[in-house]
Amino acid sequence: MPQKIILDCDPGHDDAIALLLAHGNPSIELLAVTTVVGNQTLEKVTRNALSVARVAGITGVPFAAGCARPLVRAIEVAPDIHGESGLDGPELPPPTLALDPRHAVDLIIDTIMAEEPGTVTLVPTGGLTNIALAARKEPRIVPRVKEVVLMGGGYHGGNWSATSEFNIIIDPEAAHIVFSEPWPLTMVGLDLTHQAIATPTVLERIRSIGTAPAQFVVELLEFFGDSYLEAQGFAHPPVHDPCAVARVIDPSVITVRRAPLAVELAGTHTLGMTVADFRAPAPADCTTQVAVDLDHDKFWDLIVDALERIPG
Amino acid sequence: MPQKIILDCDPGHDDAIALLLAHGNPSIELLAVTTVVGNQTLEKVTRNALSVARVAGITGVPFAAGCARPLVRAIEVAPDIHGESGLDGPELPPPTLALDPRHAVDLIIDTIMAEEPGTVTLVPTGGLTNIALAARKEPRIVPRVKEVVLMGGGYHGGNWSATSEFNIIIDPEAAHIVFSEPWPLTMVGLDLTHQAIATPTVLERIRSIGTAPAQFVVELLEFFGDSYLEAQGFAHPPVHDPCAVARVIDPSVITVRRAPLAVELAGTHTLGMTVADFRAPAPADCTTQVAVDLDHDKFWDLIVDALERIPG
Amino acid sequence: MPQKIILDCDPGHDDAIALLLAHGNPSIELLAVTTVVGNQTLEKVTRNALSVARVAGITGVPFAAGCARPLVRAIEVAPDIHGESGLDGPELPPPTLALDPRHAVDLIIDTIMAEEPGTVTLVPTGGLTNIALAARKEPRIVPRVKEVVLMGGGYHGGNWSATSEFNIIIDPEAAHIVFSEPWPLTMVGLDLTHQAIATPTVLERIRSIGTAPAQFVVELLEFFGDSYLEAQGFAHPPVHDPCAVARVIDPSVITVRRAPLAVELAGTHTLGMTVADFRAPAPADCTTQVAVDLDHDKFWDLIVDALERIPG
Amino acid sequence: MPQKIILDCDPGHDDAIALLLAHGNPSIELLAVTTVVGNQTLEKVTRNALSVARVAGITGVPFAAGCARPLVRAIEVAPDIHGESGLDGPELPPPTLALDPRHAVDLIIDTIMAEEPGTVTLVPTGGLTNIALAARKEPRIVPRVKEVVLMGGGYHGGNWSATSEFNIIIDPEAAHIVFSEPWPLTMVGLDLTHQAIATPTVLERIRSIGTAPAQFVVELLEFFGDSYLEAQGFAHPPVHDPCAVARVIDPSVITVRRAPLAVELAGTHTLGMTVADFRAPAPADCTTQVAVDLDHDKFWDLIVDALERIPG
Repeated sequence: MPQKIILDCDPGHDDAIALLLAHGNPSIELLAVTTVVGNQTLEKVTRNALSVARVAGITGVPFAAGCARPLVRAIEVAPDIHGESGLDGPELPPPTLALDPRHAVDLIIDTIMAEEPGTVTLVPTGGLTNIALAARKEPRIVPRVKEVVLMGGGYHGGNWSATSEFNIIIDPEAAHIVFSEPWPLTMVGLDLTHQAIATPTVLERIRSIGTAPAQFVVELLEFFGDSYLEAQGFAHPPVHDPCAVARVIDPSVITVRRAPLAVELAGTHTLGMTVADFRAPAPADCTTQVAVDLDHDKFWDLIVDALERIPG
Repeated sequence: MPQKIILDCDPGHDDAIALLLAHGNPSIELLAVTTVVGNQTLEKVTRNALSVARVAGITGVPFAAGCARPLVRAIEVAPDIHGESGLDGPELPPPTLALDPRHAVDLIIDTIMAEEPGTVTLVPTGGLTNIALAARKEPRIVPRVKEVVLMGGGYHGGNWSATSEFNIIIDPEAAHIVFSEPWPLTMVGLDLTHQAIATPTVLERIRSIGTAPAQFVVELLEFFGDSYLEAQGFAHPPVHDPCAVARVIDPSVITVRRAPLAVELAGTHTLGMTVADFRAPAPADCTTQVAVDLDHDKFWDLIVDALERIPG
Repeated sequence: MPQKIILDCDPGHDDAIALLLAHGNPSIELLAVTTVVGNQTLEKVTRNALSVARVAGITGVPFAAGCARPLVRAIEVAPDIHGESGLDGPELPPPTLALDPRHAVDLIIDTIMAEEPGTVTLVPTGGLTNIALAARKEPRIVPRVKEVVLMGGGYHGGNWSATSEFNIIIDPEAAHIVFSEPWPLTMVGLDLTHQAIATPTVLERIRSIGTAPAQFVVELLEFFGDSYLEAQGFAHPPVHDPCAVARVIDPSVITVRRAPLAVELAGTHTLGMTVADFRAPAPADCTTQVAVDLDHDKFWDLIVDALERIPG
Repeated sequence: MPQKIILDCDPGHDDAIALLLAHGNPSIELLAVTTVVGNQTLEKVTRNALSVARVAGITGVPFAAGCARPLVRAIEVAPDIHGESGLDGPELPPPTLALDPRHAVDLIIDTIMAEEPGTVTLVPTGGLTNIALAARKEPRIVPRVKEVVLMGGGYHGGNWSATSEFNIIIDPEAAHIVFSEPWPLTMVGLDLTHQAIATPTVLERIRSIGTAPAQFVVELLEFFGDSYLEAQGFAHPPVHDPCAVARVIDPSVITVRRAPLAVELAGTHTLGMTVADFRAPAPADCTTQVAVDLDHDKFWDLIVDALERIPG
């Protein structure tokens, strides 16, 4: 039986690849795609999501736009990583899919309430504003969600500050809400995603697929590689967001460790840090875990396989 | 032309009186009543609101339930002031009005978007969770709102901590959101409402009206008086929430002073403080003001007048 | 019997007047004068203190330099109020008095330990770095001090931020230490000192004394008046620091109110606020009180009287 | 030429071993030993230091007591790790050495000012209250100190909270002061010291030395092992403080990495965290580094060697 997921994202290069993976992999049933301010403004990331849908040939899946700004903090976007469009690099085709008229928060709530309890996995790959608002607006979704598998945070360091990762620090209060609800939550953070490197070998594999969507991904990764080299000194770019989707497809791709997690809301140097407490074995009622080790080959096999299945 | 208001409340003794004032006063058009966790749980305050509606004979106004918990903090209620029901004292008749099926956040958004821009005044008399979520979910309401006139805060001291008032400290992040939006905002805080004392003379005036709703108010005030004597040492109880409604009815009841306002989210001793900066004249673009002086007689005249107009 | 005081100061115009008041008033026995970074750098305020000593003809009193920077925060000085020298306006004569070789912290400790317990009043009129370090280095001084009467803070607003006064906000951790020790502490804050206005009438009285020290004070007040007009919009300048000395000389000059006090160390908008809790009568073990009302005439009579007693 | 060090400590089992190492190793010249509240009260740790001096046969080195409480926070001690005495386990002989009459802060200052600039290394193995006060009282010590090599903190986790180590969290403001001064600073934190495990083999090596001091260490380690097993689940105890001394004796025992360091003073979950920024190569003016890898054999060889040199 396929895994039903809602992908809440802010495309974003790696979000786009996450969407292609979710669409192309046969064990994922994509119930909805929702967008949220993050890598770029809501308007841009929503447009990007729809463009990627066209590239991938996605139809019959509702796409809805969500929150245009974080709960408490000012908007912060990441043009140094994703460019002015949020998805610089390849040419973006004009969207053909129409947006769902509902707000992303309502689409998330409606979708979860319409499915059987315990069947829907939330996969947030951007800031957590939409998910937090959904949990506050309709608390009954929380026990109905099967699991939250999110890309964000890191237990041993950040990228937007010494301790904090972009998706969390742009809306730490939303992250706090999501991390504090009692749903099972897997944090796929930088500790893991910095292992998901798009090496030249990987790039070559994708290029050799020869389809338009695969070429689209190659161009995304080429731009992303330049950004990461310039902004953060990476020889080859880490590809964060698809890791969360991969974990849903095949848990064996990523080992995890159970640990209590908290989001720091008040620190001078640690705002937005995802604090994992590894001092003792996690208590029996601990519902959170962190991603630790990636099976690099298996991961990229999943990506390549999904791209091979997408016509183009 | 009557003032169109949405009353967002958590009845609560003084919320109940605010609702009666809004209903009885002919210059107010009550567009909607929404409820939010605060003085008691959402379930209780919603039930209380509907009971008060029955006492007052309110029909044709949508009532909707909103958020059951604050954005970031744990739920804190005030049984020492409002009793276990949130409206202890008088007997509460079972509600006859049915709740609007919409979430309060959506009722607020729909109502504002349906009315002419610049015609709807928001009157929050509880925690600001609903209003904050509405502003984040649908940012277009902000420029359409005529004004926010809220009961909460205080520029020279609090009641739930040395610096902070209950409505603000129970959801300071929501208050921050509401105080930071560029709509005109009047803070009717403790500095003002501690002048709105229900003296024995006032009580006698209300009792002598002789209607069931007036008797209901008398019983509310008697319970409230006992609570305030015991919990905070007041000889006679301050009646906070109707002050915000009174300001909308007749601005001359309350003098105000323009000043920049900020909500403290990080202090050890000052969490939830509404910081007013009085060091210099308010800058030209300052959209916030604080209530300073109450015309005690005029205020109680409004209450008595409204009660006299409500049949019973 | 005269009141034995240690004046810990950062001259500073009003510190200089405080020193002249302490020296000229016969009921004060000045045991020591210590300096601390604040209105200007340690070097400048120490030089200023010695210059004022020469103007006043002070001999036989040890002067010692103390801390050159706050405990935790970066140095912040106030040239917009006190000028580049820290005592702009009058010509400053070169010091003739030699500094005590001890550090101010040690002079404070030695002096308190040498006097009878319960006889020494600390009068800090600058940041509280020296006093805090003395309390931490030698905790036995705390029960030996008669009282701390300090100029700083304010319960209803600040001058360096909306909530915070200069002496406290420049070293809030030191203030926290001093406010938390169990010695009796009187906070003479802005609520009080903004009543101590050097009106033109006051200036005329001082000018007419006709001595060099009086003329020195006139020139201080003229510069101070210009500063306060320009920087904070005061028609005539408030003269903060002598109020603390005046309270020691004659408690009836200043009414006080007992209240628990805390210094905010963590607020975004309230760092350095001196939080007074007025919600209930102060508990029996409360050792702190705040200055509330100044007898303006009596206060200036004390200043004039002291100046008349200083030869010149 | 021997390394001149001042050992500022709070014995404490591992402090005691650090003292024995510093005394027994011929390349260390122990200029002074100062004590500070930490593992136990000042009175207890000072008594313990003097008892250890007797066990070790230390004479001619000044010992002075320092601060009895942290700068800003309340006292927190660690009886679950070190027992009620602070040095439970072996029998403690009554001290024979007399304390230096000076305060530790003054002994530190005097010692540094008396030696050639650039020759004295500070080795703090407790909370940083004394060192911070010395730096604030006499800023001229900072450029005269050769290096600070301290046990405390950790870049990837804590022991007293999820993020923070005991020595730092008990006085984070003092730690902030010490970490912010421009002296070269090596943080030997938990990342390193959790590698310094006293295995049964190690214990056997020490026991077989056969002297009274070695037997004293064995008994310390046996008690310490029980504490660490019970309180933190360690199979064998980590021996923190001697690592800092070992780094001074032979830098090759511990590899280090340069990185900017900051102490978190404001976090809800991260108070006292020592934040290392590893995102980029350390800037050229970075004066701080962290200990990364321990040469376990070399480390214990140093301990054994020192113990073998101490008669008994």
